[in-house]
Amino acid sequence: MQNRVIIHSVSPELEGGQYFIKRVVGNVVRVNAIIFGDGHDVVRAALCYRKEGSRTWEDVPLTHLGNDAWTGGFRVTDLGFYEYKIEGWVDQLMNWHKGFQKKFADGQYMDVELKIGVNFLKTTAKQYGGDTKKRLNAYAKLLNGKNYKSAVEGALSEDFARLVEECPMKQHLTTYDKNLRVRVGREKELFSAWYEFFPRSTASQEGEHGSFKTAKKLIPRVAELGFDVIYFPPVHPIGKVNRKGKNNAVNAEEGEPGSPWAIGSDEGGHTALHPELGTLKDFKDFIKEAAKYGIEVAMDIAFQAAPDHPWIKEHPEWFIWRPDGTIAYAENPPKKYQDIVPINFESEDWGNLWEELKNVFTYWAKQGVRIFRVDNPHTKAFRFWEWCIREVQKDYPDVIFLSESFTRPNVMNELAKLGYTQSYTYFTWRTHKKEMEEYMNEISKTEMREYFRPNFWPNTPDILAYEMMHANSNQFVKRFLLAATLSSNYGMYGPAYEFMDNTPMNNGKEEYYNSEKYEIKVHDWSLRNRMTDIITRVNRIRKENPALQDTYNIHFTRTDNDQIMSYIKLTEDRSNIIWCIINFDPHNTQVAHVELPRQLLGIPQGMPLRVHDLLRNETYYWQRDWNYVALNPYQYPIHILKLV
Amino acid sequence: MQNRVIIHSVSPELEGGQYFIKRVVGNVVRVNAIIFGDGHDVVRAALCYRKEGSRTWEDVPLTHLGNDAWTGGFRVTDLGFYEYKIEGWVDQLMNWHKGFQKKFADGQYMDVELKIGVNFLKTTAKQYGGDTKKRLNAYAKLLNGKNYKSAVEGALSEDFARLVEECPMKQHLTTYDKNLRVRVGREKELFSAWYEFFPRSTASQEGEHGSFKTAKKLIPRVAELGFDVIYFPPVHPIGKVNRKGKNNAVNAEEGEPGSPWAIGSDEGGHTALHPELGTLKDFKDFIKEAAKYGIEVAMDIAFQAAPDHPWIKEHPEWFIWRPDGTIAYAENPPKKYQDIVPINFESEDWGNLWEELKNVFTYWAKQGVRIFRVDNPHTKAFRFWEWCIREVQKDYPDVIFLSESFTRPNVMNELAKLGYTQSYTYFTWRTHKKEMEEYMNEISKTEMREYFRPNFWPNTPDILAYEMMHANSNQFVKRFLLAATLSSNYGMYGPAYEFMDNTPMNNGKEEYYNSEKYEIKVHDWSLRNRMTDIITRVNRIRKENPALQDTYNIHFTRTDNDQIMSYIKLTEDRSNIIWCIINFDPHNTQVAHVELPRQLLGIPQGMPLRVHDLLRNETYYWQRDWNYVALNPYQYPIHILKLV
Repeated sequence: MQNRVIIHSVSPELEGGQYFIKRVVGNVVRVNAIIFGDGHDVVRAALCYRKEGSRTWEDVPLTHLGNDAWTGGFRVTDLGFYEYKIEGWVDQLMNWHKGFQKKFADGQYMDVELKIGVNFLKTTAKQYGGDTKKRLNAYAKLLNGKNYKSAVEGALSEDFARLVEECPMKQHLTTYDKNLRVRVGREKELFSAWYEFFPRSTASQEGEHGSFKTAKKLIPRVAELGFDVIYFPPVHPIGKVNRKGKNNAVNAEEGEPGSPWAIGSDEGGHTALHPELGTLKDFKDFIKEAAKYGIEVAMDIAFQAAPDHPWIKEHPEWFIWRPDGTIAYAENPPKKYQDIVPINFESEDWGNLWEELKNVFTYWAKQGVRIFRVDNPHTKAFRFWEWCIREVQKDYPDVIFLSESFTRPNVMNELAKLGYTQSYTYFTWRTHKKEMEEYMNEISKTEMREYFRPNFWPNTPDILAYEMMHANSNQFVKRFLLAATLSSNYGMYGPAYEFMDNTPMNNGKEEYYNSEKYEIKVHDWSLRNRMTDIITRVNRIRKENPALQDTYNIHFTRTDNDQIMSYIKLTEDRSNIIWCIINFDPHNTQVAHVELPRQLLGIPQGMPLRVHDLLRNETYYWQRDWNYVALNPYQYPIHILKLV
Repeated sequence: MQNRVIIHSVSPELEGGQYFIKRVVGNVVRVNAIIFGDGHDVVRAALCYRKEGSRTWEDVPLTHLGNDAWTGGFRVTDLGFYEYKIEGWVDQLMNWHKGFQKKFADGQYMDVELKIGVNFLKTTAKQYGGDTKKRLNAYAKLLNGKNYKSAVEGALSEDFARLVEECPMKQHLTTYDKNLRVRVGREKELFSAWYEFFPRSTASQEGEHGSFKTAKKLIPRVAELGFDVIYFPPVHPIGKVNRKGKNNAVNAEEGEPGSPWAIGSDEGGHTALHPELGTLKDFKDFIKEAAKYGIEVAMDIAFQAAPDHPWIKEHPEWFIWRPDGTIAYAENPPKKYQDIVPINFESEDWGNLWEELKNVFTYWAKQGVRIFRVDNPHTKAFRFWEWCIREVQKDYPDVIFLSESFTRPNVMNELAKLGYTQSYTYFTWRTHKKEMEEYMNEISKTEMREYFRPNFWPNTPDILAYEMMHANSNQFVKRFLLAATLSSNYGMYGPAYEFMDNTPMNNGKEEYYNSEKYEIKVHDWSLRNRMTDIITRVNRIRKENPALQDTYNIHFTRTDNDQIMSYIKLTEDRSNIIWCIINFDPHNTQVAHVELPRQLLGIPQGMPLRVHDLLRNETYYWQRDWNYVALNPYQYPIHILKLV
């Protein structure tokens, strides 16, 4: 209890260390804290970190920013978990050294002061080995010597000051250790472009069921567009009991394929493949072929069962049974969804249930899958996810989990905190400049930046947003551009988006008419249009510009038009700076003056800015603090400017 | 691991439960949290609390405010610590009941639903005893009965709905228990008016040393002014070695009394009394006499030693000794303060040191002292204070500690967090309306409100603020009014303030010329002036109006003049509302329009407001939303309005 230093307000720290923060390989983890001691003695502090499992800590000194705020950082280089903590102490050696300098400057006789320093040096030397110990002891000897002048000169030397700086006298440490952890993932966790399509809709003939084999033919096209993840809706056997028909009809007609999210039949459950899609070998072939193009395959895992899923017979204790002996279907009273049976996470057999569910992921991971998009995770127990993701990533640290949760903010954030690598977002419903800026700032400038990795989708098979219903192609282009430049992770439900399907169900809901969820479609994959052209260009720009490979590095800047939004993304070292200016109006050319944020960009007053428009391949010189732009939505509604 | 509810963002919660919050007897502790479950089942939550040491928890239901935010509260009635925690769970009984109502309204046949309810009722009944158990079982029987109509009617009855509401089916609880604590103190912790004077300056003749006996004669006067705490600077023997002289001269002249903060001599240390002030009996007589007037005595405890303090010989290990065998005086290099020796909290003998220091408080508590003003606590170890205050209050839960720390915000806040009951503040240096509002909002609207109890002092023997130097009487009146109406705890270094001493040392520092710290003064205690008149009236108003007995209940409202500040204080139940409007300009009448904050006061549009000016004894009717005021600093520079 001789320690005298207080450490608090450590950040990043999630819920007192209950959850870990997230970074990718190569990132710097910057840590801030409030640190102070009683009285006026010199306080010092260090940030300590180590890979989980390592026995020894690395130390980096923390820097005092003023008013008791300190900062420091360490770079993470390996996949997996790191731990960090903070140490603070009154450094008697440095405290004495600073006083020594002042007293000497004051003209005092330093004999006793030298002796005090000798004691501190000897104590400090005991904490070190090797060369450091020798240097400390050598100075102790010098300061203790008979030659007053040499002793004082030694104590005032630059070399000695450096030694005192580099070799803290650690005593009566205060340690702030709340098991703070950072999980380091691969770069794709933060930078990915997803293309979703139904493999069953890849046959070339009307009436044919597509397969992994027919889907394989599309890989070069997806690669050409510049995507690096192909995401398939569930590929498991589809329930035959209570199967849904076209446009969500309660009963399928004979021969209708059903929704892939109604999982399981006599043909198998979550570790089986829908027979018409092909064999396990076909699936693995697809994965291998995609890999040749730098594309990974994301599977959709939906933990729910069709009434004929094998689990129901094999593990009736995982489901809820009614007093009349029937199974409890999913319901939202008074409605009942008889094609789906929910899993009961309050089951007494929860241990085996958890194990089985986890094994679904590890089974597919064994087959080579490293990305899972999880359906409605917020309707399954939180503690299950926390455990499951941790367990899967123990064996497969490169596995990515995308949370498909569209619900209240606290729930979506919780899933991200407890381990989901990426999350679907509200992007789809942020239609105006102001709300888009607010949402991006919430994600990138609050604590969310530590754990919530947005993946922006302008559409999904479930969502044709109101804004996109009957929308023109400019609207499609704009929403794509927003997704791909605001967020480093984005995706699209491909065929509907690039072919610009804008026809809703006529039920007031944000659903597609003739949704591909319930029927097999034939697309003209040879088609190229303005949309595919822009997708191709923008994906290339994203790959060439590291500033677009991060989401938290965004800064909104001022324009004088509410339809024109301006944002800048910078790499940490400012070696790559991208400035986007976009028109929200899909119908009219909008003009604006856009402020040149000199401070943010580090451009002195009066110095002109040279920017290169990466879409138009034009270079501009901007001389003034406010510059004029005009953006025609029928051409490119955006400037993607690179500072050169 | 079958629990499905998440609880986080609990407030109040200080540093993850490391520190307790503070309340006084009769307060309600309001607790907020974010609480939610997976899926769509009904979530319920309870706030649990108990007196520390009690085995059983009391429950109060939490109310859902929307968007996963919940709130609840409990009233604290006894001195000491309470604990609180939160429980959340999916309530299957209520979940079923809500579904039952919807399905019935949908016209469904309820037979199976009734049976499901019976099971939930039986499970719930097992959690309760007595009458509740009986009622639950009775409904189980009714719902299970052969009479379908009666069963359904029972399930839909108001009585049954109330039962389901009042008797939660608690299962798979999530418990949020971080040892959250609230310390409940007596009312004086939050409402007190301090009057400081030097007992040695209470003799009636020049050259005489005042004593507890002469000081006793002043008690009726202090009571008449309306104060309820008399605070004495240290009353211990004053060091004779290196004693300071008049105006802080390095060496006292023969016969000079020295500073009371240089503690200890051959006449004793921190548990002795300065012989010239009187005996222990005299001191206790003083305390008793003050008590008759409703006044408590606050002692000043300064943990530092004059060079002749007995501790130095008896416990040399508690001090720092230099290699030449001399003791380390207090210093701020290159300066040395040879009248003071600091205590070394890094001492190896820290255990005995802590015990001895604590015993200083308990010694004086045994003599009847219940209030301690602690000198410079920020130059002593934080962990010592945390322990010491807790230990003293274990035996004397009514002891109040005032922290005399004027330093950086983090340090001052830390002392309050670890146990100080009240704290000196920056009030003294907040001279403009805007900074005063900001400071009050920081204290009353941020987390500080949970632990930091301000005590506002317009002056102290150490501080004649720049604003008060050569100030006119209006300035003195204004600063008093601000202190006494903004903060429920306030104090003044009395004689200098009420007699309006405005003469600084001519050294650029905020010090009094001829400071009473270093010399004995004779005051004309018979004097009454405008200042004493206003003090008397305002202290009476404070006692009569509970709204002024709290600091956290303040709301600033708008005026159109930067010199005129408006603030309203309300009791929790709004039974007492005080509206203050004050002129910051000590030289000129200022006029302003002041907004009537109808929403805050709950006054409908168009309804006039009747207010009574408690100083002027006048009643006004305010009809409009903005009302005209004119405040002349030469008369009353404030309106203290009571809503009637």
